[in-house]
Amino acid sequence: MTKTQVNTLITNIYSNNNLLENIAISCVIFGFHEGKLKILLSKYRFCNKWILPGGFVLENEDIDTAVKRIISIKTSLDNVYTSLFDLLGDCNRTNPLEDQLVISSFEIKDPESHWFTKRSIAAGYFALTKYENVIPKADELIEELSWFNIDEIPELYGDHNEMIEKSLISIRKQIGHIPLGYELLPSKFTMPELRVLYESIVGGELDRRNFQRKMLSLGIINRLKEKRRNGAHKAPYLYSFDEDKYQKTLEKGIPFLGFYIL
Amino acid sequence: MTKTQVNTLITNIYSNNNLLENIAISCVIFGFHEGKLKILLSKYRFCNKWILPGGFVLENEDIDTAVKRIISIKTSLDNVYTSLFDLLGDCNRTNPLEDQLVISSFEIKDPESHWFTKRSIAAGYFALTKYENVIPKADELIEELSWFNIDEIPELYGDHNEMIEKSLISIRKQIGHIPLGYELLPSKFTMPELRVLYESIVGGELDRRNFQRKMLSLGIINRLKEKRRNGAHKAPYLYSFDEDKYQKTLEKGIPFLGFYIL
Repeated sequence: MTKTQVNTLITNIYSNNNLLENIAISCVIFGFHEGKLKILLSKYRFCNKWILPGGFVLENEDIDTAVKRIISIKTSLDNVYTSLFDLLGDCNRTNPLEDQLVISSFEIKDPESHWFTKRSIAAGYFALTKYENVIPKADELIEELSWFNIDEIPELYGDHNEMIEKSLISIRKQIGHIPLGYELLPSKFTMPELRVLYESIVGGELDRRNFQRKMLSLGIINRLKEKRRNGAHKAPYLYSFDEDKYQKTLEKGIPFLGFYIL
Repeated sequence: MTKTQVNTLITNIYSNNNLLENIAISCVIFGFHEGKLKILLSKYRFCNKWILPGGFVLENEDIDTAVKRIISIKTSLDNVYTSLFDLLGDCNRTNPLEDQLVISSFEIKDPESHWFTKRSIAAGYFALTKYENVIPKADELIEELSWFNIDEIPELYGDHNEMIEKSLISIRKQIGHIPLGYELLPSKFTMPELRVLYESIVGGELDRRNFQRKMLSLGIINRLKEKRRNGAHKAPYLYSFDEDKYQKTLEKGIPFLGFYIL
């Protein structure tokens, strides 16, 4: 794709004029695989930094529908669990010089007034997905879409590193109300997998025995007859969530005494 | 003020053209007085329903500054504790017919295309204020600004009743991280006052002894030598927050085991 073609694409997206101005959606899409919390990042053709997947709200579209649409485009998944975590609306949240530099590499006459350099307020949503089900989809504008381990996120475009941090703080503050295990783990999982997931979210170690005792005492997890076969180690039991009880418990809030590590 | 004058005002607000389009701020401003959780509501001259105090973001203004400015205008208070609770962005969140009815009562040629009837996404913020310090301020557009008890809120404009409910749910989900007592109570308070405040927020009764034991065990409250003199009853002790310890405890989260009543 030539620079001119990319420029035509970028221009068309905005000149369609059927988008709400001044508001952009950015998504922190979480997945969990092989003991690692992961985030899905985009690499646009016209920007040399990785960026959170995002998009705009159409004129006649509910904002929640827009969030689902954007996530569906990137992941091929419908009806993913999403939640607003912040509204980033500082005037200088992106760097106009950085943006102009990106834009000036294309054949644009007036980079300072290009939409890409204009102010937008970002609505930050986090999404919880099952890693195995996600099919990351590149398109005309995005040359690559990849999972990054939470502790290996590169320097992102604009304030997107800050957004990831804010999404984690938001999850931690209401950790007892969010179906982390149900949304991020496969339907069958081991107790260590569930614990490591929570440890990745709170960013600290949790006591193995206390965690297991607490989780089992809630009555939201069923131990299955199956065990995980993994060769060398002693085969651990598999568990699954009791969806009904889980939902009711989340409404009241799981009392994660002493879990908060902000 | 004549209808024409009001119309001129409304028109000017928008035609200044130095506001971000498509995004409005709505504030659920909480206060607590004589054992009652209260919300500050506005009565605009051009609308017969009560409405949450709100406003727009200026072109060169950070969104957090806009929220502080709007709250300062209505309450005369600076640096109030605020937090985003939701983004309400359904296409049909306000009723265009209701809006056109309001507008058509003024001398406007084309009510359907008036800005008042156009779509806006509402950023909902809640604010915690000390009731005693608030001086509600009416202005050219607002004829009245009054406190309403949480259980006596009238039918509000648009989706504003829903917004209040959403702000309460948001507070409940992160109740251990929000300085409810510190921001809403006077600097000296009794234990029953603190408990009734939490009961108003969670919408249910809390065990008197457990609450007192839990609160004292956190080490964030100091019992003062003074007692509240109130005639008939036995004089209760007064308490105050230890600000440093309180802040540190909130960062980790107060473990309000079994407090959640959603």
